[in-house]
Amino acid sequence: MKEKMAQGRNKKKISLQTVERLSLYRRIFEELHNDGVVHVYSHQLAKMVNVTPAQLRHDFASFGSFGNISRGYNVYQMILTISRLLGTDSVQAIIIIGIGNLGRALLAYRGFEERGFHIAAIFDLDREKVGRVFAGRRCYHIEELERIIPEFKPTIAILACAPQGLQGIVERLWKLGIRAILSFVPKKIQPLEGMYIEDVDISAKLEKLSFLNRFTGSNGN
Amino acid sequence: MKEKMAQGRNKKKISLQTVERLSLYRRIFEELHNDGVVHVYSHQLAKMVNVTPAQLRHDFASFGSFGNISRGYNVYQMILTISRLLGTDSVQAIIIIGIGNLGRALLAYRGFEERGFHIAAIFDLDREKVGRVFAGRRCYHIEELERIIPEFKPTIAILACAPQGLQGIVERLWKLGIRAILSFVPKKIQPLEGMYIEDVDISAKLEKLSFLNRFTGSNGN
Repeated sequence: MKEKMAQGRNKKKISLQTVERLSLYRRIFEELHNDGVVHVYSHQLAKMVNVTPAQLRHDFASFGSFGNISRGYNVYQMILTISRLLGTDSVQAIIIIGIGNLGRALLAYRGFEERGFHIAAIFDLDREKVGRVFAGRRCYHIEELERIIPEFKPTIAILACAPQGLQGIVERLWKLGIRAILSFVPKKIQPLEGMYIEDVDISAKLEKLSFLNRFTGSNGN
Repeated sequence: MKEKMAQGRNKKKISLQTVERLSLYRRIFEELHNDGVVHVYSHQLAKMVNVTPAQLRHDFASFGSFGNISRGYNVYQMILTISRLLGTDSVQAIIIIGIGNLGRALLAYRGFEERGFHIAAIFDLDREKVGRVFAGRRCYHIEELERIIPEFKPTIAILACAPQGLQGIVERLWKLGIRAILSFVPKKIQPLEGMYIEDVDISAKLEKLSFLNRFTGSNGN
């Protein structure tokens, strides 16, 4: 199986799975910090994250030296370091395309701001929505992408729109310099050069669970 | 790297990645069907799904014989076959726990019913919400799980609630026979025996994109 890699600045290859675990590590460090814990050993942390201690040390080693063998990891320092690595130590502007039910839920979700992501602008093509204000943001027409995006300089676009015309929107975003897409649209996007696309297909997740329930013979009740 | 496997009824090990691709294959078959396509060759299909033809044939072979070398796959038959495999050829009851913004968005999302998942009951612990009707469903108090679940026999529970007390809820669901969980809660669940948990941590997805943007030096605009 081919593992996807990101080429780090230090020329080390970092697996995307390591990157995903960074978010998880930070969440655990934050829980520990809130509980008043100052230091934590790698074997304790590994248990909380459900990885082996070797895996955990390997993950952190990808980014340089972190820990102190005798006292373990400093919880607060680790939160700061991982935030810096993730780029969430400063606020980033993001945009949402499509203000249907899902788009509105994402707009109302407080977890983004807590993590350093500010929803700067929202777009739709429905004339009923364009010009209206949702959770403090005016909804722009999708035709205004080229005018609005340079103003807010978003780094990430969230797609929560209808599948029609999706590829065209993605190409326009790419031309406007956006290289990271989080898509909730159940439609395949043809990747463009240097663009990262994360897909969240909620129905597909349910289908997977349904399959596992059937195939392992444990269908509840 | 260890690949997770599901043990199929035919004793063949099926990778979870194959299962995830089944949803994608079906979606593509449905698009083809809507476009009036009757047969498709594996190399054409592989290109649309962005896998190698060998990978695609291997995926289908895990579930028995499907295709016909000379004419390719019958599009409509494939939709039926994959639906049967995924268990979505008959309607399944699911429940949602937590009717905040995200819970309400999921409730309003039409994609579930289209895929054979019927949201049978919703739960919350907020006295303001309990007893109210959301999108045609009465909201029950979380304390009523034991009374309500046997009535609807859900196979999957979607968690869109606060992280407090999450593990306790999961254990109660397990005792009630639910073996599949789709969790949107950014908190680790300790897995229980025979239970499948799919996590969707939207903030973590954004953090991953943020990291990739930074580390590859392409932060837009």
